[in-house]
Amino acid sequence: AGPREVWKKGGRLLSVLLAVNVLLLACTLISGSAFNKVAVYDTDVFALLTTMMLLAVLWILFYLLRSVRSPDAVPYQDAHAGPIWLRGGLVLFGTCTLVMDVFKTGYYSSFFECQSAIKIMHPITQAVFVTVQTYFLWVSAKDCIHVHMDLTRCGLMFTLTTNLAIWMAAVVDESVHQAHSYSSSHSNTSHSRLAPDSERAGNSGGGDCSCNTAICQILQQGYFYLYPFNIEYSLFASTMLYVMWKNVGRLLTATSIHDQSQAPPRASLFRETFFIGPVLGLMLFVVGLAVFIIYEVQVSGEGSRTQQALVTYYSFNIICLGLMTLVSLSGSIIYRFDRRAMDHHKNPTRTLDVALLMGAALGQYAISYYSIVAVVVGTPKDLLAGLDLAHALLMIAQHTFQNMFIIESLHRGPPGVEPHDALPKEPCHGLTFANLDALHTLPSCPPTPRLVSPSSAGPREEVAITVTPRGHWRSRCLKDISLFLLLCNIILWIMPAFGARPHFSNTVEVDFYGYSLWAAIVNICLPFGIFYRMHAVSSLLEVYVLS
Amino acid sequence: AGPREVWKKGGRLLSVLLAVNVLLLACTLISGSAFNKVAVYDTDVFALLTTMMLLAVLWILFYLLRSVRSPDAVPYQDAHAGPIWLRGGLVLFGTCTLVMDVFKTGYYSSFFECQSAIKIMHPITQAVFVTVQTYFLWVSAKDCIHVHMDLTRCGLMFTLTTNLAIWMAAVVDESVHQAHSYSSSHSNTSHSRLAPDSERAGNSGGGDCSCNTAICQILQQGYFYLYPFNIEYSLFASTMLYVMWKNVGRLLTATSIHDQSQAPPRASLFRETFFIGPVLGLMLFVVGLAVFIIYEVQVSGEGSRTQQALVTYYSFNIICLGLMTLVSLSGSIIYRFDRRAMDHHKNPTRTLDVALLMGAALGQYAISYYSIVAVVVGTPKDLLAGLDLAHALLMIAQHTFQNMFIIESLHRGPPGVEPHDALPKEPCHGLTFANLDALHTLPSCPPTPRLVSPSSAGPREEVAITVTPRGHWRSRCLKDISLFLLLCNIILWIMPAFGARPHFSNTVEVDFYGYSLWAAIVNICLPFGIFYRMHAVSSLLEVYVLS
Repeated sequence: AGPREVWKKGGRLLSVLLAVNVLLLACTLISGSAFNKVAVYDTDVFALLTTMMLLAVLWILFYLLRSVRSPDAVPYQDAHAGPIWLRGGLVLFGTCTLVMDVFKTGYYSSFFECQSAIKIMHPITQAVFVTVQTYFLWVSAKDCIHVHMDLTRCGLMFTLTTNLAIWMAAVVDESVHQAHSYSSSHSNTSHSRLAPDSERAGNSGGGDCSCNTAICQILQQGYFYLYPFNIEYSLFASTMLYVMWKNVGRLLTATSIHDQSQAPPRASLFRETFFIGPVLGLMLFVVGLAVFIIYEVQVSGEGSRTQQALVTYYSFNIICLGLMTLVSLSGSIIYRFDRRAMDHHKNPTRTLDVALLMGAALGQYAISYYSIVAVVVGTPKDLLAGLDLAHALLMIAQHTFQNMFIIESLHRGPPGVEPHDALPKEPCHGLTFANLDALHTLPSCPPTPRLVSPSSAGPREEVAITVTPRGHWRSRCLKDISLFLLLCNIILWIMPAFGARPHFSNTVEVDFYGYSLWAAIVNICLPFGIFYRMHAVSSLLEVYVLS
Repeated sequence: AGPREVWKKGGRLLSVLLAVNVLLLACTLISGSAFNKVAVYDTDVFALLTTMMLLAVLWILFYLLRSVRSPDAVPYQDAHAGPIWLRGGLVLFGTCTLVMDVFKTGYYSSFFECQSAIKIMHPITQAVFVTVQTYFLWVSAKDCIHVHMDLTRCGLMFTLTTNLAIWMAAVVDESVHQAHSYSSSHSNTSHSRLAPDSERAGNSGGGDCSCNTAICQILQQGYFYLYPFNIEYSLFASTMLYVMWKNVGRLLTATSIHDQSQAPPRASLFRETFFIGPVLGLMLFVVGLAVFIIYEVQVSGEGSRTQQALVTYYSFNIICLGLMTLVSLSGSIIYRFDRRAMDHHKNPTRTLDVALLMGAALGQYAISYYSIVAVVVGTPKDLLAGLDLAHALLMIAQHTFQNMFIIESLHRGPPGVEPHDALPKEPCHGLTFANLDALHTLPSCPPTPRLVSPSSAGPREEVAITVTPRGHWRSRCLKDISLFLLLCNIILWIMPAFGARPHFSNTVEVDFYGYSLWAAIVNICLPFGIFYRMHAVSSLLEVYVLS
């Protein structure tokens, strides 16, 4: 392990500046290529992404080789980083991304002669990148690296930037596709002239080539349905890389290692619940899936049944969101009776989780507020407008209360450790704590000679003794609540991720804001809303295990 | 002082959720009112802002009354918060805002009969709000409040949100005004049909009333020229309120109070410089002012001299930015030879400063990258395109190196305290430190009996002894550098803040992106760029005093 850094922020500053500049360059090219009138083409974007992915792969290989050769490069492991469900999700989404790359390669190969080579290079490079990166994150997500710190920070930030650029490109590509399919289904209305992207889709086949064969059509359809997994893969990888970046050069004191080794035992699913949460959640999940399929069939069919589809869709969402709000609220109320201590330890993974939950909720908040203004100020006040308003208001309430519940859950200490407020709290003089917060994790500081002795075994045993038997009603309730919310979040993720866009089928907002403004709002904010659902699922899984 | 909070983040969460929701509602209405096609009117925005300001005034009065009546509500003062230059700037910009409100009231009064009353109510309420808030921030910017913490957090966040909403409304109003004056001067070209805001400006006079009298014209011109001050006032107040919010419930340990009481003595201006920096800076300032006036006259005159004006403007900016880049770089090189210890203390003011410098630079970065792509990909490669490219590249370099210089400066310890690396660093057992970083501020831990004694007077004397006499060449160089950069940042603030828009006079980007897309990019990003200049000035003033 190298010497302690003089000024950690200085090393971070450099890598953040690199990342910001690369990201802005990518952002400029990607946003430019989304507009037809601008002379930036998708081949430019593909070339940039391919270069970035190749560089990132080279860096990852260099890192893996180096850490194999010097085993003391990683003196500490952060037990909170890269939990098994995050790494499992990464492998799952990574596999789907590989399938998508196969589809894409097949699609572009079917008119190879009139395409530029970069369009086939890009999915192949992406497949290599995804494989290498998934292996890298699986192996080293917990590392606290202590050699070549500046280089490692820059490398991690560059890989993170690459993932974010891939995410942006995928989101923009999907929005353009969505706008095209919207304008082609509404081509007889007045909206199509406002859609600047509608003329673009004809280019995706390139020049005089077109996708006419059945196999080509299937490949194209297939890769658009696999986009959500690619998007989630990039975001999952980004969060794990960010935590690794925060952990570069981190020193874990003996106290925090001791605290982290106290990981909760793997709980067997459903063992300690009342079964109400998972059963109700599964019912909502199945009903939601049915509603989603009915909605998609009715909306893509003839236009006369859109109204009916929207009423079904909104009704289901209102019921689901209402239940989730109530359940989150009751979870927060249960915490008012919970006497477990709050965990004040430094934990980059949790800080990031909280920031992402709050930040990603902004997307759905913004859409909801625009809907509310459109309904309240707009003129036609019919059934659909009322449902839309209720939906928007419940969406805000649900995000707010669910965030409060999850964030409070993540800050609770390990189960069973209750603060003994009855005992007189004497400050533990004579012990040098690396960290003031360490005082809180100790159940109290009884002035027994065993604790004052410098051996650290004392407090560990003390904690072990105070662990109460599991299965308390509060703990079981919280498990039920987290499972119910988890299942609801999955169904609310599936609907928008796989193409349900009531925002455009419903004419309230489109008429009020005009198509282009409303499309800009939805296309910028909805990806964050979708990411919120995915991230809430992983956080709720953690809540389930912790409570 | 109340008891220590169990979970500080919980209290903060509530106030942040309140602020986010209010801010998004304001954002929706303000952005809706900016578009002509959307049925949200500026009276709606004025009504919302007036209500928010009145509520904020009520809360501030309640807070002031309460803190007068219970003097133990504020047990600590954060010496870093609300430095004199920030409070002085607040009063200065607040005074200009009051003048603007007088102009606005006069302007709207001149056609009172055909205006809704809210348009006159709004500037009067704003005047009251600015007066009360300036007094409040002057008196209590340093407070660490320890009573009614949740209420205080919500109140502070609400006031902060009000300031941000006023800022957004002012920025949008100015952009609409700018777009109107652009489209009226280019009304014969093809761009005007792309400007959705161009038809709007006729409404600002309201219905059948119009601003024809000389006094009314002067009032309207006057308040548009005073907008930059109002914008800066809102941002200054926001940063001070944020620091107060971070300081709610903060406990300052004896060590940190001791450290903070060590404030540097007020340095008399120019006493310890080589005079090169201020003289060169003043020269650039005067030349820049002349260039700005020539540019404004030539651009607003007949169109034939626009090309010449742009060449002058870009040439001056390239020279100025190039010099600033070199000077920032040499400042960073000087720090490589500086042996002052890094200051690792927790300091919300500094953390915010760094975040704002990095965040606000993003605005100018984004504009520069869009310019670079437009010049590199676009077809006409003439003199103006070359100047534009050089300007964009230098802008990125200047922001990057200036940020690195300022952030490193802010993290340096007080002058003269050098780490004694030669002495053996023994960990100071026997002393219980509230904070691990306290170890770094002590010059070393010599095992003399005086230091081991529990009296805290020991380390304080030790620090006082190691303060070397001032006026070292490095210190004088740094003072020169900071003054030079300060003056350059002021002139680079004045130009865009008072209406120079080479982004639109120059046709490179407008032709490449189309008017509406480029206007959206510039109008969203430029306010951050302007704020960056203002914030850099206040940070450089701090660097000047500290070095």
